[in-house]
Amino acid sequence: MAELRKDIVTGRWVIIATARGKRPTDFSPDVKENKGKQNCPFCEGNEAMTPPEITALRPSGGRKDSPGWKVRVVPNKYPALGIDFPLTKKGVGIFDQMTGFGAHEVIIESTEHDKATEDLSIEQIREVITVCQDRIQDLHQDTRFRYCLLFKNEGPQAGASLSHPHLQLIATPVTPIRVKEKLIGAEAYYKQRERCVFCDVIALEKETGARIVYENEYFVSICPFASRFPFEMCILPKHHELNFHESRIHTQEMAECIKVTLQKLDKALNRPQYNYLVHTAPNLFARRGYWHTIHEDYHWHIEIIPRLTKVAGFEWGTGFYINPTSPEEAAKYLREAEVTG
Amino acid sequence: MAELRKDIVTGRWVIIATARGKRPTDFSPDVKENKGKQNCPFCEGNEAMTPPEITALRPSGGRKDSPGWKVRVVPNKYPALGIDFPLTKKGVGIFDQMTGFGAHEVIIESTEHDKATEDLSIEQIREVITVCQDRIQDLHQDTRFRYCLLFKNEGPQAGASLSHPHLQLIATPVTPIRVKEKLIGAEAYYKQRERCVFCDVIALEKETGARIVYENEYFVSICPFASRFPFEMCILPKHHELNFHESRIHTQEMAECIKVTLQKLDKALNRPQYNYLVHTAPNLFARRGYWHTIHEDYHWHIEIIPRLTKVAGFEWGTGFYINPTSPEEAAKYLREAEVTG
Repeated sequence: MAELRKDIVTGRWVIIATARGKRPTDFSPDVKENKGKQNCPFCEGNEAMTPPEITALRPSGGRKDSPGWKVRVVPNKYPALGIDFPLTKKGVGIFDQMTGFGAHEVIIESTEHDKATEDLSIEQIREVITVCQDRIQDLHQDTRFRYCLLFKNEGPQAGASLSHPHLQLIATPVTPIRVKEKLIGAEAYYKQRERCVFCDVIALEKETGARIVYENEYFVSICPFASRFPFEMCILPKHHELNFHESRIHTQEMAECIKVTLQKLDKALNRPQYNYLVHTAPNLFARRGYWHTIHEDYHWHIEIIPRLTKVAGFEWGTGFYINPTSPEEAAKYLREAEVTG
Repeated sequence: MAELRKDIVTGRWVIIATARGKRPTDFSPDVKENKGKQNCPFCEGNEAMTPPEITALRPSGGRKDSPGWKVRVVPNKYPALGIDFPLTKKGVGIFDQMTGFGAHEVIIESTEHDKATEDLSIEQIREVITVCQDRIQDLHQDTRFRYCLLFKNEGPQAGASLSHPHLQLIATPVTPIRVKEKLIGAEAYYKQRERCVFCDVIALEKETGARIVYENEYFVSICPFASRFPFEMCILPKHHELNFHESRIHTQEMAECIKVTLQKLDKALNRPQYNYLVHTAPNLFARRGYWHTIHEDYHWHIEIIPRLTKVAGFEWGTGFYINPTSPEEAAKYLREAEVTG
């Protein structure tokens, strides 16, 4: 059973995955990604290799846990958090501990083993988005979940242990600190100006144009003004929207913007490894009046982090990042990278 | 000229090192560490390959920038921050920007090219500590510097570009967010209990013993209760001390504790790459009344982070870490690893 522990000085929570119990000899200097199709648990025909499926997109029907799906959602076989025990909190001396309650799901994006998100068709990406939105909506019914994080690790350096295209969804019993920082900052901005900070950023970026990578009618991708990493990008809906899972009308344009943005990254940097993650609002059913203005002040978005540089002592010690490529230069390279879409 | 940019939502500062101006083709998938002695700028006899030295330990005398030193301090040739221009702040539309003012120094720990910190003698480590303490004391005279971070990157995966043993010291015009989090947490704890949280943690750890790795009369190393990373460690002075650079009386024991702790890490995990960093108090000459109780509430310490796992989308998105080895198990392996000291 995993457990959550709180750092007594900073208040940061950590997941101690005691079930995995890694010993010194279990850490190989470089984790190898499983590349082969034969033993891939996410390939069509290998459905028995995963835990029983939660849901799947089966346009032509078909039995659960059998071939014939387009998108498939299963529990993570090695979950960071588990749902099979109660959420309890306790003190350990002066320290705080919580059971590692939560959900950890895998969204298999396609039956095609060798593709990245950006290699799928816009229609396929749109279907994956819809399945993810449905999963988040469903998980929000359980008010013990405060937050759902949807994310992607593309490549072994980015933390992927399987190469078959998949996303992960983790539902947590506390709102993560990185999200809280954004909620608090956005709320403070809103209180002062009665405007959404993300909407203001989009307006400014459209005015100067220097950090815009791509845009269509409803979505825009930019290199943020204070990018932590070279070629870091952010995709936002142009009109104010609180939640990713409620962004249902323009999923076609969302999928197109994601595909083109990631294709540009591939073109400019020769298919780098990357992470992307969706920072949506917390579970409003579970909130306890913390963010009363949240409907107006928060605005969901996607962070894309190419894995080009190493995080070192300075970054760990300060929380500052040293970015060797200005966002304006990065955006120019990405804007000019021609892709098919 | 580097610049600092503030994230408008989270308030986090980022250093944009525009002078380096890395283009897409400059990012190789895996940075190679310069292993050769011939072209090593930190080897004895190659003093001309570094910028002019700031200070050096030369027990038998000798000219500046010539051989005959034991510890040598030089400006970083590719500084993240520079001291050659004024500290100015400005707005860019709705964004905040600051010139990249600061100091970035390198402390060459030994003339011996192939050694890590833990391979040096206790006396050598003690000499390096004293030189670092003198440098921080000197930098604190400049009240534009709010903070001095001393850190080590050991190995290419940990961010080192040169293998010759060296530490880095960066003085910044703002107190880094990771330090601020600790100052704020420690202050809140002190206000409630009128005791230092770090002193309380040491007392509790000594009581249970389960997370202690090593201790001598004046220093202790532990695996923190809420360790983010497997085999993460923290070295603390047992008696309350605010500042690293004022910890002058027991440098012998400090050096011994650092050496034994790192040797145990080498033994248990077969010389893993790592970062360590000193979290001392901010520059008290430059502070503006933020932390009035700081002398009693903050307690300097060293964080040691072995680089065994990859940070992935979940960690970037949440700020939570998933640690696959419990601190109690890690401490047991480290405690039992026999070393010569």
